Amino acid sequence: MSAATQKLNTIKSKAAIAWGPNQPLTIEEIDVELPKKGEVLVKIIASGVCHTDAFTLSGEDPEGIFPVILGHEGGGIVEQIGEGVTSVAVGDHVIPLYTPECGECKFCQSGKTNLCQKIRETQGKGLMPDGTSRFSLNGKAIFHYMGCSTFSEYTVLPEISLAKVNPKAPLEEVCLLGCGVTTGMGAVMNTAKVEVGDTVAIFGLGGIGLSAVIGAAMAKASRIIAIDINESKFELAKKLGATDCINPKDYDKPIQDVIVELTDGGVDYSFECIGNVNVMRSALECCHKGWGESIIIGVAGAGQEISTRPFQLVTGRVWRGTAFGGVKGRSELPEYVERYLAGEFALNDFITHTMSLEKINEAFELMHEGKSIRSVIHF
Amino acid sequence: MSAATQKLNTIKSKAAIAWGPNQPLTIEEIDVELPKKGEVLVKIIASGVCHTDAFTLSGEDPEGIFPVILGHEGGGIVEQIGEGVTSVAVGDHVIPLYTPECGECKFCQSGKTNLCQKIRETQGKGLMPDGTSRFSLNGKAIFHYMGCSTFSEYTVLPEISLAKVNPKAPLEEVCLLGCGVTTGMGAVMNTAKVEVGDTVAIFGLGGIGLSAVIGAAMAKASRIIAIDINESKFELAKKLGATDCINPKDYDKPIQDVIVELTDGGVDYSFECIGNVNVMRSALECCHKGWGESIIIGVAGAGQEISTRPFQLVTGRVWRGTAFGGVKGRSELPEYVERYLAGEFALNDFITHTMSLEKINEAFELMHEGKSIRSVIHF
Repeated sequence: MSAATQKLNTIKSKAAIAWGPNQPLTIEEIDVELPKKGEVLVKIIASGVCHTDAFTLSGEDPEGIFPVILGHEGGGIVEQIGEGVTSVAVGDHVIPLYTPECGECKFCQSGKTNLCQKIRETQGKGLMPDGTSRFSLNGKAIFHYMGCSTFSEYTVLPEISLAKVNPKAPLEEVCLLGCGVTTGMGAVMNTAKVEVGDTVAIFGLGGIGLSAVIGAAMAKASRIIAIDINESKFELAKKLGATDCINPKDYDKPIQDVIVELTDGGVDYSFECIGNVNVMRSALECCHKGWGESIIIGVAGAGQEISTRPFQLVTGRVWRGTAFGGVKGRSELPEYVERYLAGEFALNDFITHTMSLEKINEAFELMHEGKSIRSVIHF
Repeated sequence: MSAATQKLNTIKSKAAIAWGPNQPLTIEEIDVELPKKGEVLVKIIASGVCHTDAFTLSGEDPEGIFPVILGHEGGGIVEQIGEGVTSVAVGDHVIPLYTPECGECKFCQSGKTNLCQKIRETQGKGLMPDGTSRFSLNGKAIFHYMGCSTFSEYTVLPEISLAKVNPKAPLEEVCLLGCGVTTGMGAVMNTAKVEVGDTVAIFGLGGIGLSAVIGAAMAKASRIIAIDINESKFELAKKLGATDCINPKDYDKPIQDVIVELTDGGVDYSFECIGNVNVMRSALECCHKGWGESIIIGVAGAGQEISTRPFQLVTGRVWRGTAFGGVKGRSELPEYVERYLAGEFALNDFITHTMSLEKINEAFELMHEGKSIRSVIHF
């Protein structure tokens, strides 16, 4: 009886499981429980492999728990909806959101932030809003990750964690809008609100930094200074719109001083896209006195702190941060997909590698070696 | 001949001179050179004694130089104008500005900041824009201070460093708008732009903090939490509009945690009005996730740094600072005087002591003992 019930309420799915810090993922056939009230079963078509996945896999993420199905930058198709789900239907193309948008919580109601808190507590524990997991292997529960777990052929998400997007968009590309690209572009266009003629500095030319370059180019910034110690990134950065590419190792003084000189006083906006607290300081201090704003995008290691002299702020610089580019997933992300479809920006430049789920460990290796911008898993 | 020339070009003035760090000021009869091109001779009627004067006198101000005539919170009357001066005339009532407004420099032109840089370099060196001093004692030059030097019966300022105000306003009171009161009120109304119903926390209930309380009350903040370890300040804070007064010593946990609990998640805006880098951190961290902004007003000691986990910013808090409340002195300060005259706020609550210039050292003592909010020197 219980075996029969289990069969009726679950489907089999291929998934990559992270068993513990720094252990290679293994591909398993797991059981995925069908969606409950307010939940949706999604068939993942493609998923990017992001530094945040690697960060959690490294064991440095204080919220990291194992065993878990990582992945949070996906694109998929609704396979089945649970009771009461009305905003998506079977067959809809969706991008999973690690930052949901319930529209009801204090945060959503404020209109001032995209940090919906409706399901934060359970999501942070690797569980669905009802406090349980939908994933299991041989009866043992496997945790969800960032509310997404896109390294599984099938995954279950709350309805509020899905952005319905134009089905004309190739999910193998727009999956990148589920994290990195939106984070970088949104930081520029949505959080900083860069305007025509502004000057910007972008620290770190990974997927997020390069997306920030695109955002700055779309905003028609007059000068886009791209900074990295890996010069192999410069060619693409220039192609995407960077006007200056700088390697801090080429100078014997702090990079912020170099940028202040280069720009007659500093930039209007800077973006830290690495997660290095020392670079965050440089990014703040290269901003123009009186109005320059620095936006932290990168996620630093647990316990690390930023610091600066308060004089930097008293003289008019502003220090802020952003998550998912300040973009409200359900109401604003579909517009990013439309702009992509309209040809306002390309995504194929980011996809340096594609591979099957079975080769997912290679994606992490390529990332660690700095050889990839994004590897995309095709299911 | 040279003696005669000197006589024609100078007038005698009573002034308090600071000879070196931590030395009592002495009252001297100095020579004040008459205003040169673009300069104005002002007869000071009254001057507040501010913590910044004490900070420089303590020797901790890295820009501090001696001998100097301190004072930067004054009110006076134009006595004589130099060549080319058109925006003020003899007899005009003026408030000296340590932050000028030239209207021409990159900073003024930006419209984004009040930090006019036109004369910053010479002002920082205690000199007039032409690189010389107008003050001397027995032929030895005495430095200017913050471009104001209001502890002198007569002082000389650049035309761009004077706000012309309504002569109906008593200079013995509106002199406080030359620094502390405008700094506190402006931080709330101009830098933070607090709106009706917002919650605010104000750290430090000296003249600036209490002015911030007034600003928050004028902005109709729904909750104004005033924080100080000196509970004798609470009565006035409440009179001015504080809804809650808190002494961090009453709690065995960080004050930011107390405020976050008290406000169901944190305040919309916080203000640090002390200059203590640890309090600056508390002020940031008591802000509401997603949108809370902390504004640093206080000036920290040389070399001191602020720090926090970048997560505080990535989750939506904003760290900024303000100088002179973000108020553009020539174009915006007169309006503050008008609002004072219209009865929107009082200044007499701040003036706990008045005294003659001869007793100025007592003003510093009262301040160090925490017994005064403002002492005002009447010339």
